[in-house]
Amino acid sequence: MAKFLTNRDENYAQWYNDLVIKADLAENSAVRGCMVIKPYGYAIWERIQSELDKMFKATGHVNAYFPIFIPKSFFSREAKHVEGFAKECAVVTHYRLKNDESGKGIVVDPAAKLEEELIIRPTSETIIWNSYKNWIHSYRDLPILINQWANVVRWEMRTRLFLRTSEFLWQEGHTAHATREEAVEETQRMINVYADFAENFMALPVIKGYKSENERFAGALDTYAIEALMQDGKALQAGTSHFLGQNFAKAFDVQFTDKNGKLDYVWATSWGLSTRMIGALIMAHSDNRGLVLPPKLAPTQVVIIPIFKNAEQLAKISDAAGRITDELTAKGISVKYDTRDNNTPGWKFADYELKGVPVRLAIGPRDIENGTVEIARRDTLEKQSIPADKVTSHVTELLVEIQKNIFSKAEEFRKANTFRVDKWDEFVNILDNQGGFILAHWDGTPETEEKIKNETKATIRCIPFDSPDEDGRCIYTGKPSKRRALFARSY
Amino acid sequence: MAKFLTNRDENYAQWYNDLVIKADLAENSAVRGCMVIKPYGYAIWERIQSELDKMFKATGHVNAYFPIFIPKSFFSREAKHVEGFAKECAVVTHYRLKNDESGKGIVVDPAAKLEEELIIRPTSETIIWNSYKNWIHSYRDLPILINQWANVVRWEMRTRLFLRTSEFLWQEGHTAHATREEAVEETQRMINVYADFAENFMALPVIKGYKSENERFAGALDTYAIEALMQDGKALQAGTSHFLGQNFAKAFDVQFTDKNGKLDYVWATSWGLSTRMIGALIMAHSDNRGLVLPPKLAPTQVVIIPIFKNAEQLAKISDAAGRITDELTAKGISVKYDTRDNNTPGWKFADYELKGVPVRLAIGPRDIENGTVEIARRDTLEKQSIPADKVTSHVTELLVEIQKNIFSKAEEFRKANTFRVDKWDEFVNILDNQGGFILAHWDGTPETEEKIKNETKATIRCIPFDSPDEDGRCIYTGKPSKRRALFARSY
Repeated sequence: MAKFLTNRDENYAQWYNDLVIKADLAENSAVRGCMVIKPYGYAIWERIQSELDKMFKATGHVNAYFPIFIPKSFFSREAKHVEGFAKECAVVTHYRLKNDESGKGIVVDPAAKLEEELIIRPTSETIIWNSYKNWIHSYRDLPILINQWANVVRWEMRTRLFLRTSEFLWQEGHTAHATREEAVEETQRMINVYADFAENFMALPVIKGYKSENERFAGALDTYAIEALMQDGKALQAGTSHFLGQNFAKAFDVQFTDKNGKLDYVWATSWGLSTRMIGALIMAHSDNRGLVLPPKLAPTQVVIIPIFKNAEQLAKISDAAGRITDELTAKGISVKYDTRDNNTPGWKFADYELKGVPVRLAIGPRDIENGTVEIARRDTLEKQSIPADKVTSHVTELLVEIQKNIFSKAEEFRKANTFRVDKWDEFVNILDNQGGFILAHWDGTPETEEKIKNETKATIRCIPFDSPDEDGRCIYTGKPSKRRALFARSY
Repeated sequence: MAKFLTNRDENYAQWYNDLVIKADLAENSAVRGCMVIKPYGYAIWERIQSELDKMFKATGHVNAYFPIFIPKSFFSREAKHVEGFAKECAVVTHYRLKNDESGKGIVVDPAAKLEEELIIRPTSETIIWNSYKNWIHSYRDLPILINQWANVVRWEMRTRLFLRTSEFLWQEGHTAHATREEAVEETQRMINVYADFAENFMALPVIKGYKSENERFAGALDTYAIEALMQDGKALQAGTSHFLGQNFAKAFDVQFTDKNGKLDYVWATSWGLSTRMIGALIMAHSDNRGLVLPPKLAPTQVVIIPIFKNAEQLAKISDAAGRITDELTAKGISVKYDTRDNNTPGWKFADYELKGVPVRLAIGPRDIENGTVEIARRDTLEKQSIPADKVTSHVTELLVEIQKNIFSKAEEFRKANTFRVDKWDEFVNILDNQGGFILAHWDGTPETEEKIKNETKATIRCIPFDSPDEDGRCIYTGKPSKRRALFARSY
């Protein structure tokens, strides 16, 4: 166990925080609730961005950029949206500072007060639909399939690195369509893209489903989400896709002429995924030694550590390491050769375990003599000696195997921690003692959901798309129910 | 000439604005001074980002992300920096809105006033050096070579799309070093990276040099810049690299123990390049038909336009176009095949000329019969017919040739518009009547520079690195001078 990490099984929250700090992913900044994403954490975000961006483009989307400022009045246009987003936010009221009269500091210049306050975007539907109004006249201008990579601000009172910060990075897709069907189809397409990304890149099994009315995006007619289970039995919402109906088109008066010459309001979707995913990645897979990164998102996939006592040994090892690096790099595998001489190999082993590098190669003088390399995998910590001329094929296969294994482990964990529950006592008992996903019947009312939340802190994470029709009785009220919902405590 | 563009030679400023709008690059938003970067404009920025990012990484830099908010007091710590940056800026004073008493709108909640105002970053030296303080203890922690891709806000009164906007996108490098020499070397390295990028990707010849004291970055000991000449004879500063000395380390008390155990302040650089470069790209190369994009930064490098009267013809053309697309794509060339049937080929020709797509292929029924393709280049507007089976090699070579030609044309233009001037009358005359770069002697004082600026609107763009030692007399005061400076009116 890495000595500097709190034991995961004793204090999960502290273990998480220690890990984020010690693995050099992020830290708190001088500004309340805002984090600094350090190079190693940002490199993971770059991997996420790069893969997601390809998937967005492959599904016909393009990127654009809209202003960070939203005039205050824009929020008032969509009644529910303002309730959800225009409350805890950063408000710009002035546009100039001046020297104070003592000459010692600077103060806000009262003469430079804005006529209308500007809100730092907590999400961009309003400023974007205000632009779309000028872009859309006819069905020929549709669909608009735009994504934006941006920073957003939601003034959070209790913050946690990656999971909940006042400023965070995300992507937000905003699409405009001629018909309800097309918009619904897009909403589904994007939740599928997110699920595909979560499962195939993050090695994170997710449950796709509908949000209940209480948990819906402010201004949406329907919200789809992917929900993942963390190792402490709490759920994490990993991405959402919203069917916005004609709400924003009506709020910003965006009408178009359809094929038959009829005027109608435009249909909308929006969907987003944020740096929160890095929190999910950490919490789903990591252990007491540190991060466990799926190879497809690891900034460094393979580290090579030389074990040497003198320059002559190092020279021979570096020859072999150089050949291996070239071969692996040619296969598109990212490799780091760590020759620092101020740390012992043991220290380096622990450090790369902490950083979650999937594969470690160690080469010592005896390996050079024998033509071997020691290979260790981060997920299972298994080690073996292999012939040096087989390294490339071995590593290539091992990376695939590790990616698969991390997913399977998370899937098994979820399976072991998903419960079909029909009795209230059991429901409460599971939540209090072990956590996990609970599939239970619910009478479909926001009131009952609210009561369950107040009594247990569990919410409906989603109503899974694949939840079968099934007659039952609400876990709380005993009223009839047709389908199970997925409950959990969540991040 | 594209009918919807103002003639470039009649009204350059209006031509520029028309072009940005008509080519769908960007538009003004509802927020004063902030632009919407539309998908086509953003695609150019993505190409710029992608290439620059590779160059930064190849020179050992990594990316990270720091908060958008800077506590007001941070600006007061570096005396010159506050003068330069903390004046025209967006100030966040509150963190909550509430329903107003009439219930009809939302107002700023006076109870949610921040104890200390937050400034939206106009540049990030202060917040970053406040973080570096905790990262740097020993020479072993150095160098730190970090870059950030971010949005920044400088409250501008007169704005122009891309060239000067209140919010813009950029990258800002912030490095920390153990010695003055290393920091100076880094400052030079990065101005060379910018010059390399400008010349080899943007096809924009630039002059590298030192800024005079008046034009230096607020808080820097030295600023290096690359300066380019636009087609209207005005200069545009296309990237700057600053040697910050120990100013920020002192302001934020960042000290380290050197190899000899001695405590010293850390040496710093910063360097930045912004979406302004898109403005430079447009103004340097484009013409009355629209954009002329260098192939290395063009989002679409080749467009294929079918010329057909019926579905049967289109099917045959699409077969050929498909083969060509596959072959070109395999070579890493971006291709668009435009089969839209609601526009004529002529309309499409004009549209892709407007958009600056470097190579246009047209295929009609006769081409199918003859096994030919019509190929047209955007830079010279030349057309020719070539055998279909030679398209790939021809296009590959042509893209290289176009890239080179655009650069040469810009270089020739600059050569024809760079003047060595020794008489004040001639200096004024050139500025008033034709514009361009003027190499003239200057007595080295800020006062003289200021007077020249007030009388002619020309500033010293830089003192070129390669400006030879040469005895002369200041163009304005007649005092002795050892070297020529580069003067111009500028954006």
